[in-house]
Amino acid sequence: MPRLAYLGPEGTFTEEALRLLDPTAERLPCATVSAALNAARSGDADGAVVPLENSIEGAITTTLDEFAWGEPLLINAELLLPVQFSLLARPGTEIPHIKRVYTHPAAITQCRAFISRELPDAVVVAAPSTAAAAQEVSLPGSPYDAAIAARIAGEHYGLAELAADIGDRSDTVTRFVKVSRPGPLPEATGSDRTTLVVFLADDHPGALLEMLTEFSVRGVNLTRIESRPTGDGIGRYFFHFDFEGHVADARVGEAIAGLHRICGEVRFLGSYPRADGVAPQIKRGTSDPEFAEAGDWLARVRSGQV
Amino acid sequence: MPRLAYLGPEGTFTEEALRLLDPTAERLPCATVSAALNAARSGDADGAVVPLENSIEGAITTTLDEFAWGEPLLINAELLLPVQFSLLARPGTEIPHIKRVYTHPAAITQCRAFISRELPDAVVVAAPSTAAAAQEVSLPGSPYDAAIAARIAGEHYGLAELAADIGDRSDTVTRFVKVSRPGPLPEATGSDRTTLVVFLADDHPGALLEMLTEFSVRGVNLTRIESRPTGDGIGRYFFHFDFEGHVADARVGEAIAGLHRICGEVRFLGSYPRADGVAPQIKRGTSDPEFAEAGDWLARVRSGQV
Amino acid sequence: MPRLAYLGPEGTFTEEALRLLDPTAERLPCATVSAALNAARSGDADGAVVPLENSIEGAITTTLDEFAWGEPLLINAELLLPVQFSLLARPGTEIPHIKRVYTHPAAITQCRAFISRELPDAVVVAAPSTAAAAQEVSLPGSPYDAAIAARIAGEHYGLAELAADIGDRSDTVTRFVKVSRPGPLPEATGSDRTTLVVFLADDHPGALLEMLTEFSVRGVNLTRIESRPTGDGIGRYFFHFDFEGHVADARVGEAIAGLHRICGEVRFLGSYPRADGVAPQIKRGTSDPEFAEAGDWLARVRSGQV
Amino acid sequence: MPRLAYLGPEGTFTEEALRLLDPTAERLPCATVSAALNAARSGDADGAVVPLENSIEGAITTTLDEFAWGEPLLINAELLLPVQFSLLARPGTEIPHIKRVYTHPAAITQCRAFISRELPDAVVVAAPSTAAAAQEVSLPGSPYDAAIAARIAGEHYGLAELAADIGDRSDTVTRFVKVSRPGPLPEATGSDRTTLVVFLADDHPGALLEMLTEFSVRGVNLTRIESRPTGDGIGRYFFHFDFEGHVADARVGEAIAGLHRICGEVRFLGSYPRADGVAPQIKRGTSDPEFAEAGDWLARVRSGQV
Repeated sequence: MPRLAYLGPEGTFTEEALRLLDPTAERLPCATVSAALNAARSGDADGAVVPLENSIEGAITTTLDEFAWGEPLLINAELLLPVQFSLLARPGTEIPHIKRVYTHPAAITQCRAFISRELPDAVVVAAPSTAAAAQEVSLPGSPYDAAIAARIAGEHYGLAELAADIGDRSDTVTRFVKVSRPGPLPEATGSDRTTLVVFLADDHPGALLEMLTEFSVRGVNLTRIESRPTGDGIGRYFFHFDFEGHVADARVGEAIAGLHRICGEVRFLGSYPRADGVAPQIKRGTSDPEFAEAGDWLARVRSGQV
Repeated sequence: MPRLAYLGPEGTFTEEALRLLDPTAERLPCATVSAALNAARSGDADGAVVPLENSIEGAITTTLDEFAWGEPLLINAELLLPVQFSLLARPGTEIPHIKRVYTHPAAITQCRAFISRELPDAVVVAAPSTAAAAQEVSLPGSPYDAAIAARIAGEHYGLAELAADIGDRSDTVTRFVKVSRPGPLPEATGSDRTTLVVFLADDHPGALLEMLTEFSVRGVNLTRIESRPTGDGIGRYFFHFDFEGHVADARVGEAIAGLHRICGEVRFLGSYPRADGVAPQIKRGTSDPEFAEAGDWLARVRSGQV
Repeated sequence: MPRLAYLGPEGTFTEEALRLLDPTAERLPCATVSAALNAARSGDADGAVVPLENSIEGAITTTLDEFAWGEPLLINAELLLPVQFSLLARPGTEIPHIKRVYTHPAAITQCRAFISRELPDAVVVAAPSTAAAAQEVSLPGSPYDAAIAARIAGEHYGLAELAADIGDRSDTVTRFVKVSRPGPLPEATGSDRTTLVVFLADDHPGALLEMLTEFSVRGVNLTRIESRPTGDGIGRYFFHFDFEGHVADARVGEAIAGLHRICGEVRFLGSYPRADGVAPQIKRGTSDPEFAEAGDWLARVRSGQV
Repeated sequence: MPRLAYLGPEGTFTEEALRLLDPTAERLPCATVSAALNAARSGDADGAVVPLENSIEGAITTTLDEFAWGEPLLINAELLLPVQFSLLARPGTEIPHIKRVYTHPAAITQCRAFISRELPDAVVVAAPSTAAAAQEVSLPGSPYDAAIAARIAGEHYGLAELAADIGDRSDTVTRFVKVSRPGPLPEATGSDRTTLVVFLADDHPGALLEMLTEFSVRGVNLTRIESRPTGDGIGRYFFHFDFEGHVADARVGEAIAGLHRICGEVRFLGSYPRADGVAPQIKRGTSDPEFAEAGDWLARVRSGQV
């Protein structure tokens, strides 16, 4: 039974993601994304589940930066989890009494309309996670009157649900990934995704166009690009890429080897089955058999057999 | 004397940026980036100063999303401000006594080494801004023992500076922009930057490559690209672009008209002098005189004078 | 009644093309393509009809080079003419008697199988045109026993047709163009072609890719590309391009103005209705209304109305 | 001692090229380029020397088409030969007596100014080669008074040189290649050229741009492109490419394997030392060691060692 670290405390959306990704795993809650990943790195856990991006908030930059700068880990699974927020308070609290609300900044953004309408005079304070907010509110003497968090956080910490599904949109989704220490990759399934981090060799005009051309010329479709600062001043960025296919695919292998040649550093973050099960449309000339046949042809040409 | 809204309270890095951008302006502190921008939109202020990106933290996504989705505003100036963090507490507090630290998540990230080394047992709680953290800590009965914020925030709220320049890096910079309601643009100076938001018409493979090609074919160099979720599910993004040049430049005009033609929506966010004063290297064939001469040539060709 | 020069003598495929392009024109046969074009240039004729390319032989390089280097002329019409070759001889000649055959090199190539099979021992000599070959063979005392030419050449010069349709392929086509001195262009019809000559500014790697990108980024499809030597040594070329659309089309105008900006010289050779009547598929964002709308949008943006 | 076929008769520029490429070879003159290549194909000769392009005339299309359609041969050497034309006649002939001139069409073009000036009334007739013209003129009873050919043709056939170096330009160069039946390729020298023929899979807009991108993305610079008709009607072309590098180079191998994957057919025509000895500038990331290192990296990534 594997032991998986996650962004806790109990009751976070991440815990819910972990339960769906691996129902039988032992769960190790951690205070931060970094702590969860470090548990996986150190061997305290066999892996970790962390959020990568949200359909409203965008990238979870802590996760991106940990993947780029920390000890290497490999993504081996992803999950898309619809997220619904509830307004949670100690039993007996009523909405008009709420003066201070505690929740994660992502939830503040996603519940903006509800907050304006129902809690116009409340002060809303940023918490490290929605579950941490629920935990804090559950403490006697908490300076906060309510938390915005997942329903299961309320159940876990004994809070009453004053309002359910209070997000501005009902179709918000968070993408979670499961990572582990480097080792054998998941098999290619035909519906895979690969994630990379790329640092430029020298930040010349057109560098991004060159990188995208390495993908497009081999028929590899990007599904996500994020730029992140390298820390060396405004205007210096590195890139996260998600794209269709598995590194075992010939077209993917040649594309990322091309990036490796022309870029400063390419960090491979994993190839894993897509949560949505979508199979890519493979462009003429870029399937594995076509690569193999072209390799045979090239070998013949090089030996003068034409 | 213009009245400029900013991300307050008094003592934020944003206030410092505003003072540098317009020393004589009347300053209107606002609780959030959104509130500052809304003050500019409504006419309560003549403009606003907000952070756009940080060399460690990356984009300020609230600002990006406000620019993309809110009532239009135009950037007319930018400023690069070195940011230095101080550990601030109520007079009499000593570092060993500090159990709870309050600060903005960006500061948590940027002072990670100091916190681990000097405050290993402290709980660090996320605040909406560094100055708000200082303000909160200054209140009698605050649950927090210290704030991490700009020195001027400490001066403003009567806190003692227990440690100075505690960031992991001493060269951290934040980029601020000054915006106002749409109106005449700043003149082109030869060292300008333009900012755009682009929504895809249809999210097909290669769409990003096509957008970058619209820039590169006219010799326009990108300086920043950010992807942000459209809100319509994982895998749907729109883009923020910064690039060299002024919309009055022929090459820039043709490039963004090209984007406008092939994309779903292009929102112009302003052309303004670059804070670093760097003048772009203009690629052969893309200067204004060369565009003008080509236009004359085309007119002759169309009239059959060859 | 216009007077049109053409590659004569009477009986050439070019004469046939001229009759189809302008049945009522007065016809002025000329000894060479250059002479026909010079007649148009000098005013001796109102225009000229010359071959541009053949579906077997490829480009007529004399025509290409005349268009590139000679006094400017504009193409205003094109015609695709199926070409069928006949073996022609003085009456009384029989195939076994034929020892010397005279014809244009293009016909030698296109009738290779017939010649090998039926005239295995004949010497085949290159003539300046197929009709000139017929004319020569018709002369008493000609050293040649037969000509390969169009049937109408045989009729014209009183030769017997010993074999008809002797080309290796029965679907050979020659493309002819009608040119005149520069002046108002034919109206755009929605099914037009434009022809250009482009000289590089400096022959750097990637120059051709850059030129093609100027077309592709505006959705302009090439239909022909020919490289020709500049005369300045092996490895120095200029280019002929045919592409879909009329110079009056916004996308075409912007593309060729782009070429004009980045290349050494662009010589416009005309926009004219396509002989095949094919209308181009116009890529999203590249129609005239879309260009006009983008221009209006850009004007608003530049004036700060966003 | 190898036996090499060439475009004869004796005295052609091709013979001169052959002597320079292989001074000790036995020489087998052939009536046409095709005959010379067929001698190499059949084993009558060990190889052949034929012209490929001329700095004034452009491609020798017969050679291009033979290489594309005939039984495969491989280029193993190239030579750049300055070509100078002489006016040659039977001894005793003087320029004013010349009424009929016989020469190859390329020479007609290249000596146009001399012909107009010195032989304004002469009829100029096309010959299959310049040496064939000299041979014909040398025959008693020839209908021609003079030939334009290489000086050595005059020496060979006993003609007087009435005028020397009569070309419009004195720097005209012809590129010759030596070919043989498929077999081991010449070793890479660091200054090599590779020649290919490419047939499109389906002639869609942008196909040429895609082909060029296969080269450019691997840093392979084109030195020549020629389009030739496929024979299937106007508007259907295939392409000859010359480019820097040897097929044994990793970047070249990957580029042409890419073409092989996306195109209908790629015919390899040889890798051989460049006559001009120019070594290519190798773009960052495209050298053989960089390809090898990237291959090792990819193997590690695929095995999960990151």
